[in-house]
Amino acid sequence: MEEKFSITDIRYMARALEIAKKGEGSASPNPMVGAVLVKNGEIIGEGYHKFYGGPHAEVYALKEAGQNANNADIYLTLEPCSHYGKTPPCADKLIKSGIKRAVIAMVDPNPEVSGRGIELLKEAGIEVELGLMAEKAKDLNEVFLKYITSDYPYVYLKKAQTLDGFIASSTGHSKWITNEKARLEGHKLRHKVDAIMVGIGTVLADDPSLTTRLEEQGGIDSLRVILDPELDMPLDAKIINQESTASTLLIASEASLESNSAALMEKKEKLLAKNNVDIIAVPLEEEGFLNLDFILRQLHDLNISSILLEGGAKLSYSFLNKGLIDKFYYFIAPKIYGGDDGISSFCGQGPKLMSDSKDIKILDRRFLGDNILLIGELQNK
Amino acid sequence: MEEKFSITDIRYMARALEIAKKGEGSASPNPMVGAVLVKNGEIIGEGYHKFYGGPHAEVYALKEAGQNANNADIYLTLEPCSHYGKTPPCADKLIKSGIKRAVIAMVDPNPEVSGRGIELLKEAGIEVELGLMAEKAKDLNEVFLKYITSDYPYVYLKKAQTLDGFIASSTGHSKWITNEKARLEGHKLRHKVDAIMVGIGTVLADDPSLTTRLEEQGGIDSLRVILDPELDMPLDAKIINQESTASTLLIASEASLESNSAALMEKKEKLLAKNNVDIIAVPLEEEGFLNLDFILRQLHDLNISSILLEGGAKLSYSFLNKGLIDKFYYFIAPKIYGGDDGISSFCGQGPKLMSDSKDIKILDRRFLGDNILLIGELQNK
Repeated sequence: MEEKFSITDIRYMARALEIAKKGEGSASPNPMVGAVLVKNGEIIGEGYHKFYGGPHAEVYALKEAGQNANNADIYLTLEPCSHYGKTPPCADKLIKSGIKRAVIAMVDPNPEVSGRGIELLKEAGIEVELGLMAEKAKDLNEVFLKYITSDYPYVYLKKAQTLDGFIASSTGHSKWITNEKARLEGHKLRHKVDAIMVGIGTVLADDPSLTTRLEEQGGIDSLRVILDPELDMPLDAKIINQESTASTLLIASEASLESNSAALMEKKEKLLAKNNVDIIAVPLEEEGFLNLDFILRQLHDLNISSILLEGGAKLSYSFLNKGLIDKFYYFIAPKIYGGDDGISSFCGQGPKLMSDSKDIKILDRRFLGDNILLIGELQNK
Repeated sequence: MEEKFSITDIRYMARALEIAKKGEGSASPNPMVGAVLVKNGEIIGEGYHKFYGGPHAEVYALKEAGQNANNADIYLTLEPCSHYGKTPPCADKLIKSGIKRAVIAMVDPNPEVSGRGIELLKEAGIEVELGLMAEKAKDLNEVFLKYITSDYPYVYLKKAQTLDGFIASSTGHSKWITNEKARLEGHKLRHKVDAIMVGIGTVLADDPSLTTRLEEQGGIDSLRVILDPELDMPLDAKIINQESTASTLLIASEASLESNSAALMEKKEKLLAKNNVDIIAVPLEEEGFLNLDFILRQLHDLNISSILLEGGAKLSYSFLNKGLIDKFYYFIAPKIYGGDDGISSFCGQGPKLMSDSKDIKILDRRFLGDNILLIGELQNK
């Protein structure tokens, strides 16, 4: 596929992918996009999609290049939009600018675009080449791809465990299993996603803040989603009393909220009186658990394109067994808990036969000091 | 340390270490030793210690070189012996051969030698340089080092687990967790050690053969040690009915054997009637378990210099908590068991605080296809 592209093409597309990634954590639920305008072997303009609803990558690149864009080549990590959304269509702007060639990594999976942007360019006589570094572009926008083509957000599961597989001791103690480098990667994950989800059990056990702590770039806090069927959230929990730009969403059961219990109504009012606390009610499943499928679709409707599941062995078990996890981040520390009474990654009944366990395709593995990070997805997903 | 050595020196010592390793599995409980004789930039003789009680490395090298050894340099991975053991002292032979220089990786930790061999060479006017690639030489002979300087064999623990830390499902099913490459490494470990140890529970559950299956080089079977306090070994167990050059040692409790129960005595006789089955009795500890410390010292007395612990979560737990494990081999497969009812690596009570778990120093980590092998030892050992 990439034979028709030159080393120069690859270099500029790599640059476009590099700057696209700067939109991580802020472009969402829009895709991350990078644009690089090149003329006579020089970059004359570039840009990326900085924040949701803001100007598209092409707009920045064209603005920087000005009249110079005439006859230039543009490298785009994603097909330009062809529809009037929050901004006018980029395909039109590119045509007006007079560029002569567009190298595009991938078609926009958004059903509203999906090939139409490329058609417009071609109809206007612009030479279009598609597919350069397409895999990298797809990886970059795995979240957007899922979000725009389904009714679900992209779900990441993070686990931090000992060598022998425990996420906490028998008393629930877990500070700290992994090293600083691994924990920093955890914060990068939080920065990347739109929402972090934990069960109320994790809040009661650890009183976490679930904010994003990245020293260098100042991480972006994500919406904190707490599955809290009966509103057990303590009024003094750190999570709802801290300074944060993000809010906290409690997911209660319809059954609880409709019970009209005076105590529960009072608790609800007190929680809602807090800054940045919202509550929604969802139905229970037959087994008496919150309906996760329903919750994910609700969050998708709220423009949440990605969720990070943190902690909660029961929550993880439910997500795993319903096939709702898109990507696994396994942090393994060189520690041996050395017992069988600790808390495992997944709380519930496993398969009778080991051969019925779930095979993971390892996508990436990194050494973080003496810790290991394995990134994978279910085989035959 | 290595500044006084030239690249040439390093090359020849590397060769000596390489050939020394050929004695793995057969030289034990003697050390693995390699010798390379060099004259005018050419190797004129080399050898390694092939089997226990057989000629030492120096003997082979001197024999190959003949008269030519006069004025040559010798590279030795271990100080030459100075005592009459199963063979006459090599230091004398080297002196007689007329070599002019000896480069030696490390002093022999054997208290009967320990510097005396080097002294003899020096007294005879041979130039001796010590310490080249000493760390590599020590790693090569970690087993011998422990065996010769203590009353215990060197203990390896092997674990093969899922990503979430399970060595078997709730029903005890475990075939197969790891891939072929990982299982081959497991057989290499068996080849390397003098004995393999499992609890009777593993025999009853899996009916394993515990032989060494290495296609290429034809692995050497190791003594199979089964902790079997009450002689529950089935008479038709594969382990005591198969073709194997190694025998099986059952470790029973003194209390059982001294009980004079007719059934037990009959079972004992039937077991001993098998080819290659031995039984020894050891005392119980206060908690009613076999005294592991006693067992290890017994095995040391039987010239067992290394043991591989395989399987048995309770056995592993006891060894871990008594600090009897020298090296951990953790094979991790990219599978998720996905429950908390499987069998963990260690069966017993873990620490209350995660911070009291055992820190492992990772010595090596390898990717075996999509499996991972972590080799480590306890920190602050």
